[in-house]
Amino acid sequence: MSERVVILSTGEELLTGETVDTNSAWLASSLWDLGVQVRSMLTAGDDLPGLVRAVGSACDQGSVVICTGGLGPTEDDRTAEAVAAWAGVESSESSEALSQIERRYRTLGREVSTANRKQAMLPGGATVLENRWGTAPGFSVQHQGSTIFCLPGVPVEMRNMFQAHIAAALSTRESPTLVRMRTFGVAESRLQAMMDGVDLDGADLGFRAHIPEVQVKLRFPTGTTEADRHAVVRRVSDVLGEALYSVDGGDLAESVIEALSQEGETLSLAESCTAGMTSSWLAEVPGASAVLMEGVVAYSNESKVRSVGVDAEIISDNGAVSKPVAMALAEGIRTKANTTWGIGITGIAGPGGGSEAKPVGTVHLAVSGPSGTRHQTAVIPGDRNQVRIRAAGAALALLLRCRG
Amino acid sequence: MSERVVILSTGEELLTGETVDTNSAWLASSLWDLGVQVRSMLTAGDDLPGLVRAVGSACDQGSVVICTGGLGPTEDDRTAEAVAAWAGVESSESSEALSQIERRYRTLGREVSTANRKQAMLPGGATVLENRWGTAPGFSVQHQGSTIFCLPGVPVEMRNMFQAHIAAALSTRESPTLVRMRTFGVAESRLQAMMDGVDLDGADLGFRAHIPEVQVKLRFPTGTTEADRHAVVRRVSDVLGEALYSVDGGDLAESVIEALSQEGETLSLAESCTAGMTSSWLAEVPGASAVLMEGVVAYSNESKVRSVGVDAEIISDNGAVSKPVAMALAEGIRTKANTTWGIGITGIAGPGGGSEAKPVGTVHLAVSGPSGTRHQTAVIPGDRNQVRIRAAGAALALLLRCRG
Repeated sequence: MSERVVILSTGEELLTGETVDTNSAWLASSLWDLGVQVRSMLTAGDDLPGLVRAVGSACDQGSVVICTGGLGPTEDDRTAEAVAAWAGVESSESSEALSQIERRYRTLGREVSTANRKQAMLPGGATVLENRWGTAPGFSVQHQGSTIFCLPGVPVEMRNMFQAHIAAALSTRESPTLVRMRTFGVAESRLQAMMDGVDLDGADLGFRAHIPEVQVKLRFPTGTTEADRHAVVRRVSDVLGEALYSVDGGDLAESVIEALSQEGETLSLAESCTAGMTSSWLAEVPGASAVLMEGVVAYSNESKVRSVGVDAEIISDNGAVSKPVAMALAEGIRTKANTTWGIGITGIAGPGGGSEAKPVGTVHLAVSGPSGTRHQTAVIPGDRNQVRIRAAGAALALLLRCRG
Repeated sequence: MSERVVILSTGEELLTGETVDTNSAWLASSLWDLGVQVRSMLTAGDDLPGLVRAVGSACDQGSVVICTGGLGPTEDDRTAEAVAAWAGVESSESSEALSQIERRYRTLGREVSTANRKQAMLPGGATVLENRWGTAPGFSVQHQGSTIFCLPGVPVEMRNMFQAHIAAALSTRESPTLVRMRTFGVAESRLQAMMDGVDLDGADLGFRAHIPEVQVKLRFPTGTTEADRHAVVRRVSDVLGEALYSVDGGDLAESVIEALSQEGETLSLAESCTAGMTSSWLAEVPGASAVLMEGVVAYSNESKVRSVGVDAEIISDNGAVSKPVAMALAEGIRTKANTTWGIGITGIAGPGGGSEAKPVGTVHLAVSGPSGTRHQTAVIPGDRNQVRIRAAGAALALLLRCRG
């Protein structure tokens, strides 16, 4: 696959910083998974001369340009006009695009306005790309050896249209097979070092950091047999060790909900420094209600005693951030909520509250289950929010290890 | 201020989608606040020819180019080399940069390695930009009417160095005054329509969507008197109405913690569909422990009854997602935790669980306080996570209005 791919994002809201461009990273990652490395990315605003220049510059660099944004009904939406100017053609109303718009509006029970009709004005010779997720049709134009695909900027529409119209076109010749290994608790730079010298049998190696986890991606060339893939995955698994928690599976919260619901197991949590973050992650997974029974945000010492049943003496003897308190939180909430598993988390998220013995970032975690309670401690670097995110992740990873 | 500013982001991890580029949006937003509109943005990888081409293209378009990334110690870090090639100069070891690196390592108690010494190799004629937040010095180079500022890609270093070295330089001539008005509960497109025709007395209007809130930003030209600014802010406040919750203040969670801690008031929460998200947001604010006493993630009906004291009959008579249950959650947790305020949240986040009478997105919120309990209901559009985020935001906004 030797296409030179360039991504062009358009929209004044990107140049004012109003919106973070997540589309480009999503596209780049999806392209990498298909075996395509993006050459460069450009971002342009809404002014027509700048936009025409950007389209030209992108098409100079790329044999395939994926452009997002600027297909809406308002006068700021000028992508079609810019592409027509670049290709040196006139725009005209595409009957195919118009009938797609009319069909879409009919299902929504709305009238097609003059502004919406404008969305059917496409450069001459354009191929219409159907949008079944929104009102703006996409299109592609070929000119001087380059193909530019224009998609809406709304992420859900852009993603679905990329999969429907572009991924298929790009992956016809050689489709690599992708294996996604999810890890927790080891920094990306350390993972990269660990992978040094591992025999990947020709597979490409990629990383994707998505706090608090890091994905290790293996891209196998076409024709790799399943047995060969398995052998590589096994070698990589051995190297990653306990850091690896899922192969081609969900994230930490999804893995926990899936594993527990399969066995009819239930979970309760008593969180101090994470203050509901762990519960909230679990509740984000559809079907969580079969597993997640109860959580207590035991932020004050009183609430640890009153609502989770932690012995007040354990707190006064050891301090609220300690192994005995983490264990008492896990055991207390498990007993109270009568669940298979109980999680307890206590820590010093900062910026205040640290001491020499217990610096900011000190976290104690415990998981209580059918065969006892397991404890883990760590000093987590980073700011208040990073400490809390990594502590929540560590608690879920510990639960998965307790079951594993 | 007539500088043409271009942002250039570098790093292979951006082109593989491994990392989302948040630096560019942060820079663009900070520049807008200073009265500078970014012309365009470019992203390049680590290969030297591509990088040199990107530097040239950025400097063709911009009189000021802000480049991030590629200043590290590894061989993939080639920004200095690329800038030297573009400017047609040799690189050499900068004694000023080297002594900054040595000073930094001394305070960290570490040795300067050969790789680290490489970070002092700068294009001839470069001005060194001190980095007090990390090890890689930045630099700027002037060539053919353009100035390129090179900063590290690590966000905390980049942000601090931008403020220290670039913002000051750009804002010497005309510094606008910025007023940031935070709103909740009204979509950005609707806010834009509401602002149509409001007399802004020459101020520029900007929006920044940061789910679940939208900021309305007013940028006043130099020389606007405080009285004139106040008059505009008052007119805009009138138009925004209840959607406005803070002028030049913090976000929803910060506003709640600030308002309550000032009066010595305390808060407890009983959350069902949001499942700890609201508590977790509050706990993210330093000093939250003076306000946030306890939260219960009352996900199951049993836990609503057992841990918050909701009457089981209220649930069986009205369903778990109902006004009486939201009110009983708020009142129950307030009584149990003995706090000034209690928040109750119950809703159907989806994708399952909806009915004709109670569609997915139905949320009931209640805030209980010294003078009674206030209830609010809404049907929130979006996916599971959007419903939960907006519900948590709505609960905090309701609390602020109850105190208002």
